[in-house]
Amino acid sequence: MIAKLRIAVIGAGYWGPNLARNFDASPDWDLVAICDRDRHRAQLVADRHGGVRVVTALDELLAADDIDAVAVATPAATHHEIACAALAAGKHVMVEKPLADTASRGEDMVRAAAEAGLILMADHTYCYTPAVLKMRELVREKALGDILFIDSVRVNLGLIQPDVDVFWDLAPHDLSIIDFVLPGGLHPLSVTAHGADPLGAGKSCVGYLVLPLHGGAIAHVHVNWLSPTKIRQMIIGGTRRTLIWDDLNPQQRISVYDRGVDLNLQALHEEERSASTVSYRLGDTWSPALPEREALAAMVTEFAACIRENRPAITDGEAGLRVLAVLEAASRSLARPDVAGLIANDQRELIGETL
Amino acid sequence: MIAKLRIAVIGAGYWGPNLARNFDASPDWDLVAICDRDRHRAQLVADRHGGVRVVTALDELLAADDIDAVAVATPAATHHEIACAALAAGKHVMVEKPLADTASRGEDMVRAAAEAGLILMADHTYCYTPAVLKMRELVREKALGDILFIDSVRVNLGLIQPDVDVFWDLAPHDLSIIDFVLPGGLHPLSVTAHGADPLGAGKSCVGYLVLPLHGGAIAHVHVNWLSPTKIRQMIIGGTRRTLIWDDLNPQQRISVYDRGVDLNLQALHEEERSASTVSYRLGDTWSPALPEREALAAMVTEFAACIRENRPAITDGEAGLRVLAVLEAASRSLARPDVAGLIANDQRELIGETL
Amino acid sequence: MIAKLRIAVIGAGYWGPNLARNFDASPDWDLVAICDRDRHRAQLVADRHGGVRVVTALDELLAADDIDAVAVATPAATHHEIACAALAAGKHVMVEKPLADTASRGEDMVRAAAEAGLILMADHTYCYTPAVLKMRELVREKALGDILFIDSVRVNLGLIQPDVDVFWDLAPHDLSIIDFVLPGGLHPLSVTAHGADPLGAGKSCVGYLVLPLHGGAIAHVHVNWLSPTKIRQMIIGGTRRTLIWDDLNPQQRISVYDRGVDLNLQALHEEERSASTVSYRLGDTWSPALPEREALAAMVTEFAACIRENRPAITDGEAGLRVLAVLEAASRSLARPDVAGLIANDQRELIGETL
Amino acid sequence: MIAKLRIAVIGAGYWGPNLARNFDASPDWDLVAICDRDRHRAQLVADRHGGVRVVTALDELLAADDIDAVAVATPAATHHEIACAALAAGKHVMVEKPLADTASRGEDMVRAAAEAGLILMADHTYCYTPAVLKMRELVREKALGDILFIDSVRVNLGLIQPDVDVFWDLAPHDLSIIDFVLPGGLHPLSVTAHGADPLGAGKSCVGYLVLPLHGGAIAHVHVNWLSPTKIRQMIIGGTRRTLIWDDLNPQQRISVYDRGVDLNLQALHEEERSASTVSYRLGDTWSPALPEREALAAMVTEFAACIRENRPAITDGEAGLRVLAVLEAASRSLARPDVAGLIANDQRELIGETL
Repeated sequence: MIAKLRIAVIGAGYWGPNLARNFDASPDWDLVAICDRDRHRAQLVADRHGGVRVVTALDELLAADDIDAVAVATPAATHHEIACAALAAGKHVMVEKPLADTASRGEDMVRAAAEAGLILMADHTYCYTPAVLKMRELVREKALGDILFIDSVRVNLGLIQPDVDVFWDLAPHDLSIIDFVLPGGLHPLSVTAHGADPLGAGKSCVGYLVLPLHGGAIAHVHVNWLSPTKIRQMIIGGTRRTLIWDDLNPQQRISVYDRGVDLNLQALHEEERSASTVSYRLGDTWSPALPEREALAAMVTEFAACIRENRPAITDGEAGLRVLAVLEAASRSLARPDVAGLIANDQRELIGETL
Repeated sequence: MIAKLRIAVIGAGYWGPNLARNFDASPDWDLVAICDRDRHRAQLVADRHGGVRVVTALDELLAADDIDAVAVATPAATHHEIACAALAAGKHVMVEKPLADTASRGEDMVRAAAEAGLILMADHTYCYTPAVLKMRELVREKALGDILFIDSVRVNLGLIQPDVDVFWDLAPHDLSIIDFVLPGGLHPLSVTAHGADPLGAGKSCVGYLVLPLHGGAIAHVHVNWLSPTKIRQMIIGGTRRTLIWDDLNPQQRISVYDRGVDLNLQALHEEERSASTVSYRLGDTWSPALPEREALAAMVTEFAACIRENRPAITDGEAGLRVLAVLEAASRSLARPDVAGLIANDQRELIGETL
Repeated sequence: MIAKLRIAVIGAGYWGPNLARNFDASPDWDLVAICDRDRHRAQLVADRHGGVRVVTALDELLAADDIDAVAVATPAATHHEIACAALAAGKHVMVEKPLADTASRGEDMVRAAAEAGLILMADHTYCYTPAVLKMRELVREKALGDILFIDSVRVNLGLIQPDVDVFWDLAPHDLSIIDFVLPGGLHPLSVTAHGADPLGAGKSCVGYLVLPLHGGAIAHVHVNWLSPTKIRQMIIGGTRRTLIWDDLNPQQRISVYDRGVDLNLQALHEEERSASTVSYRLGDTWSPALPEREALAAMVTEFAACIRENRPAITDGEAGLRVLAVLEAASRSLARPDVAGLIANDQRELIGETL
Repeated sequence: MIAKLRIAVIGAGYWGPNLARNFDASPDWDLVAICDRDRHRAQLVADRHGGVRVVTALDELLAADDIDAVAVATPAATHHEIACAALAAGKHVMVEKPLADTASRGEDMVRAAAEAGLILMADHTYCYTPAVLKMRELVREKALGDILFIDSVRVNLGLIQPDVDVFWDLAPHDLSIIDFVLPGGLHPLSVTAHGADPLGAGKSCVGYLVLPLHGGAIAHVHVNWLSPTKIRQMIIGGTRRTLIWDDLNPQQRISVYDRGVDLNLQALHEEERSASTVSYRLGDTWSPALPEREALAAMVTEFAACIRENRPAITDGEAGLRVLAVLEAASRSLARPDVAGLIANDQRELIGETL
């Protein structure tokens, strides 16, 4: 029997208790400490888990010998400092999304983990839902053929956040999912963001992200805080099949349509193209059975597995970085609406040669 | 009893027979002739309507004394020539969408009609559906408050057209509806189009249109030929209520949500804004009963009414022009993806001082 | 090339014109006459089809040599007389549903056709929709396994009919579909009907039909004139899979669920049964592509085919009879609500040894 | 400030912990003890609530002075003994559904509570959901007019229970809701049950309940363990409006249709009735906003309120009894399928003069 790994959860606010609950329930992990400056808040969480240790000082926590890894659920602006300290203390690190508040700080974290030979994992929770795991599998095994377009919509009545706009609040979900699903991750040729602030809230409350991909494909994200009904839908169109994920339809979250448009490629080289060069396929629809499993349970399992196997997590620091790079480019695009917000050269290098 | 107006339908292809059927069934109109260069095609239509006259030459048709108006259902490239000749012959004119193949030809037609004191009407058929008429009524009586955003999606497996891209094929519907619904019509501050041609068809098959409006509002249109399922949905978000039109849900096409986000406007002028300045309204949903009526029947009624009352149609030439202006700006934007495709100044003047 | 068969349509009211249109459009048929006592009404239909012959006297029509078959679309009470006369005159006969107004008259018609060696076909139109044809195929090829239950719901705001109750108005659709889908047809062990007349209309406006089947299975039909929303849904539960037909969802009319409850059959013979003898299967969902085809077009094709091949139609007179037998038993059940309305012995014999 | 009432939860199995959690969270209650023969199980629950007292012997619990009321969440067969002992000890009692395992034992409990002047309340949890509370309000304020029909469907893949059939497992929900919504409660004129056991499980797995009501109205319940998709839908048709409750549509659980059929009542007394005596109303649809509140929280609030106000609970023992009476009559009906399962005279007396 493999010894359990030992985890401390840093941050006992909104998300930390969910992490603590899943680490505690996991056969892979021993939850050994809750760390928060607010002792009372940390104690409340600890009490629910058999009275695990409560620590209020980060350096005290990181000095402990009985901790293999930490899960960071603090505000984004503190991620860099906490993660770097933890890595320096030899702990593996999992960080709540977004990885950091800036791409350069995120890069710093990724570099530090690489140099220390430790795991840095992004908590892109949605990627661990059974639906998104199935989407990744279908896309990667080419069940959809080549990807033609991805259209993601995430709208609902949302609290207007004091510190972030609708892009930074909601789009990390869509971007991390698209990054997770695409082989090689999300590498847009450019990033253009269009935002609207019709209430005068001082930030975008309605947002559109345009992400041209290689080969003429396109990804598009619509995020919106002002819609009275929820829509959480992603269409992934491929040359062979098209997939629709409707996260609010628990009875049929994923539908795969064996339907599409076929282009007679030979005809493309001729002078005269006509409608006759295009034909429809009207095939069956298929909806795979999905297991009922909490995403966070799968996530903590993956964190343990990549530590034990000494391999990158399927949502590793690089993935977190790619999401950050798009969000930063979106912000630059918003600031200069007359030009498409290209991803800066230095980031392009970082996020990879496949760009 | 008012004498009936006398109409000839020009063009016996796909759309002309629908027009002929509705003019023939209308108490306002006498269908007197079908005109098409292809006599056989025209005769087939005429036979269904008690053997009305068949004419193959346009000038012969326009020389007739017993015709008050013509309905033009020929390819867009011929609209300008036919409409101008008809106006010159003293006939009122209704033209299938789009009004013309270029904005400048459309302007020419509008000018000609104005100078001749004749009616020029755009056949924006969707505007005459009970749902869209109700949307116009609700927006104009301020039931939604001020408009914050309009998001329109029109996707389905579409035949890739030989002569037009997905914008010119599908977006006229969305644009004419938005133009119809907004008081004063659609006057975007700029037009940015993003298209994708992932199949290498030589034109956009997936398209996004971004239309910032006055006061921080935004309109957005997603048109797509490659989706295996149909979506035809428009969300109109307002300060008081939000409306969702789902054209594919005949049991509840329009839903009006008395829900939204309220911003404490006083707090906006203070240094520190916080989430507490925003509150939700969670009110009832309401779905108005809609009559069952064919849109074209309402359209031919409007054509008769505006001739008799000597007033512009609710979808007049100017409306057709505003739609054309956006489509042309979209094409310019596509050609220069690095800049937002601003509507040219001359067009801005034309399409109105409210811009 | 096979010579066309020659058809006359009898009855130019509501349904006759639809029949005429489909026979006229069929490559199998020549539409040669429209017969109705009301010459004007018949002429209107004839005019739409190139001026085919109009006949007002039935015996004149049946005396004609150039007619191979007749399609009867007159009130149910006249079916027996017209069909028997047509059979006596050597014409094949297709009869609008219900086959007759009483089961005994229906039997008479079936007997007459058998003795004359002519085709008698019931126009159970729904059976010729692509969805129902697919359901029949799936049930008959045992894709669902053995049938456990069939639950059919057909509710909408319906005009309260002057001459029939909700069972005779709506249930023929459900019954003819169930009869069509089940191998061997619908042979309930008994028929119990429950009706309600809450408005005091003098007849049932809400109705439930309970039809126990062989082997412990059950069919149930809910018909209702008083519901403000339409529901047209049939669930066919089988040992292997379950099928749901939602006729109002054009994007996914048929869903086949590879899910169910498995009973450990060995455990059934033991004294103590427990929940552990039951297990779930949670498999995929599959929705077959269905062609777009008008049901009546398939129906007139079948009528021609069974004449040429001298075989019973897939909705033959016997099928019409089985539906009638259940409707009559339902009426008897309603008249004696204290007992289950058993199908009378003589009818049981008629409707077959498989009962 | 009012002193809190003191509660003990009896039974620490599936449902007891939910009760304990809600009593503990309520401002009206002090949770003082958990009682279960299995000390370990009780301790686990107690630990989650600050270490409240654990008791394993019922008589010890009931002898305590610091307990005002008990909540019973044990198997149905034990309800009678526990509740009667608690009432004899002067405690108010809330009992999980069903009230008892037989109607006569339930009557005994109701009588004992009445004689002791104590509250006996049925935990009909569904009645405390915001949707059902709203339905009750709308029906009782006559927003729907007179009730014409109630059709309830509750189907899903259900574990085949070892001790109960599908009626006793699922129908208590539907029956308690119908009882709660109807003014005066559910008093069917008779009860007929139809069950099917197509898998040979030894009990009904598919069930239909027919409940004629006064004035020609009808209630009908469909419960089914074998359906691969969930349906939880209730239609309540009234003379003025019709309500549809779709419990699986969180975005629009309740829809009220201002649509219906109007009967010209004067015409009913004439010899000749015709379709013209009926007319449609096609009005708007309205969906009331519903608060998000856990049903059990509202239930424990009601328990406290009816103790303090010394009034029957809105789901009192009588309500539990009416549900039991229908379930027993259903079982009798199943045992004699040839006759409608009338409610026995003695029960009819008990369940009230309004029958």
